[in-house]
Amino acid sequence: MKLVSFGPPGAEEPGVLVRPDAILPLRHSHGLPSGGRGEILSRWPSAEPLLRSAVDRYADDDLVPLADTRLGPPVPRPGTVIAIGFNYAAHGDEVLGAARPKGEPIVFLKPASSVCGPGDAIVCPPETRQLDYEVELAVVIGRGGQRIPRAEALEYVAGYMIANDVTARDIAFGAGAEHPLLFQIARAKGSPSFCPTGPWLVTPDEFDPADAGLRLWVNGELRQHGSTAGMAVGVAELIASVSRSMALRPGDLLLTGTPPGCGFQLDPPRFLADGDVVEAEIDGLGRMRSPVISEPVAVAHPPLERI
Amino acid sequence: MKLVSFGPPGAEEPGVLVRPDAILPLRHSHGLPSGGRGEILSRWPSAEPLLRSAVDRYADDDLVPLADTRLGPPVPRPGTVIAIGFNYAAHGDEVLGAARPKGEPIVFLKPASSVCGPGDAIVCPPETRQLDYEVELAVVIGRGGQRIPRAEALEYVAGYMIANDVTARDIAFGAGAEHPLLFQIARAKGSPSFCPTGPWLVTPDEFDPADAGLRLWVNGELRQHGSTAGMAVGVAELIASVSRSMALRPGDLLLTGTPPGCGFQLDPPRFLADGDVVEAEIDGLGRMRSPVISEPVAVAHPPLERI
Repeated sequence: MKLVSFGPPGAEEPGVLVRPDAILPLRHSHGLPSGGRGEILSRWPSAEPLLRSAVDRYADDDLVPLADTRLGPPVPRPGTVIAIGFNYAAHGDEVLGAARPKGEPIVFLKPASSVCGPGDAIVCPPETRQLDYEVELAVVIGRGGQRIPRAEALEYVAGYMIANDVTARDIAFGAGAEHPLLFQIARAKGSPSFCPTGPWLVTPDEFDPADAGLRLWVNGELRQHGSTAGMAVGVAELIASVSRSMALRPGDLLLTGTPPGCGFQLDPPRFLADGDVVEAEIDGLGRMRSPVISEPVAVAHPPLERI
Repeated sequence: MKLVSFGPPGAEEPGVLVRPDAILPLRHSHGLPSGGRGEILSRWPSAEPLLRSAVDRYADDDLVPLADTRLGPPVPRPGTVIAIGFNYAAHGDEVLGAARPKGEPIVFLKPASSVCGPGDAIVCPPETRQLDYEVELAVVIGRGGQRIPRAEALEYVAGYMIANDVTARDIAFGAGAEHPLLFQIARAKGSPSFCPTGPWLVTPDEFDPADAGLRLWVNGELRQHGSTAGMAVGVAELIASVSRSMALRPGDLLLTGTPPGCGFQLDPPRFLADGDVVEAEIDGLGRMRSPVISEPVAVAHPPLERI
């Protein structure tokens, strides 16, 4: 099953992709919790059978053509967006040199407001000249827990999707690189649109995270390619490890690291710029196509957030 | 106006403290958005007048005695929990030595699941031997925005409360201190109960963040004392600065840094242990009293999260 959100930014509705070109909107008449979108994941264990039942009894008149709407992020209002650093050996080697992580995998957080849809523009703020991409497998948590045993960890997964962990490399070191406490990773990875996700959430019965190819292109040029088999720590062990340090909740996202080939790793480095197009793909999860634009002056005073 | 949440963990209701010893529960009959608690902040500009009107017309029979209930976090399900590092000169001097931050204030994030109520226990995980406290003024965002002008920034505030940015110092450096990218700040500050907040959200008409005394005691011994006047960057400028790097949303929390006197800064260092009692106070915002306990084995398999 492929879950989507669709409609204007901030007012997306939930749906299921029931044909390659059509969405079945999920409405309260399907017995789903009121409140729609975010609520579905917060009640995931009970909502999933209702979704499957809805998919079994739709009429063609109920469908919305994919071409007629915008896809939003499959989880429009995630809880905590958790990301893992250096989980593909070659990426870590190039960045860290001799400083290899010890102990638990490196965890950092992105603000929920950085999440956007699979076709939305990546907006480059004027403060950076080093805008970069990172294609990642994103795990959507469907069941909350703490100190989740590795053997049960995959039971806590609602599904999988593609994420691009967009990063302004120069902002991370803007406060001075002398001391770890000065590392501005939250600012570097936190701007709106710095976390495109999608195009849909694929439920675990349709996707195996053990060995799926990941690819990312900039303007049609292949930059990143790898497989989730190259992860230093796999999905189940990541869930177990992260949940030793923080409680996971339904609707949290876990980004599992990126293979090599980011712009800052090229020689010479090549960063994203206005007019570029980034495409990210994971076998079995589809493809996202994100244009890059410079931040328009008009965002200075956005309307009140509707949640 | 003092907003509270009250009731069992995970099932708190919203209320207003209308007398020093009594809460007025806020119900849909007051015209508030359905969904209760989190929803109030997401509709803050329109919800605030409804709250004030509810407070004007209650009957004594409607009240819940403070002594008869548990206070939860005033924002039980915050969006993003944003925190500022090194915002009081003396704290930064001791920790960083010659490495002073340049540019924008240091931002890091805590997971929303770290938030707990003002009287809840701080639970010490078995992985740390350096559990520490940080009393901070917390700003509750009531209106969303990006690149908020400093002159308008306080209009985006729903209120203020006390927060304790609990930190496991040793976990932060668990992956190796050689490289900033290995800094495990999200794990060190992310465990459940590592963000006590409360006891109530005080609306801006009743609190001036410019010069309020902060104090923290461990077992009755004063450890931290300062004033928000000692902040290097004040509340309005922090909102402006953070919102240049990320969009703020209603229900986000902004923790504004801590004055000196943390356990790791004492000579010799003194960390929190099972049986300790931490009290945190800010003039005009009340006081929180948090017992410290070791993590019981029973949390290994908590029931499904109810959100």
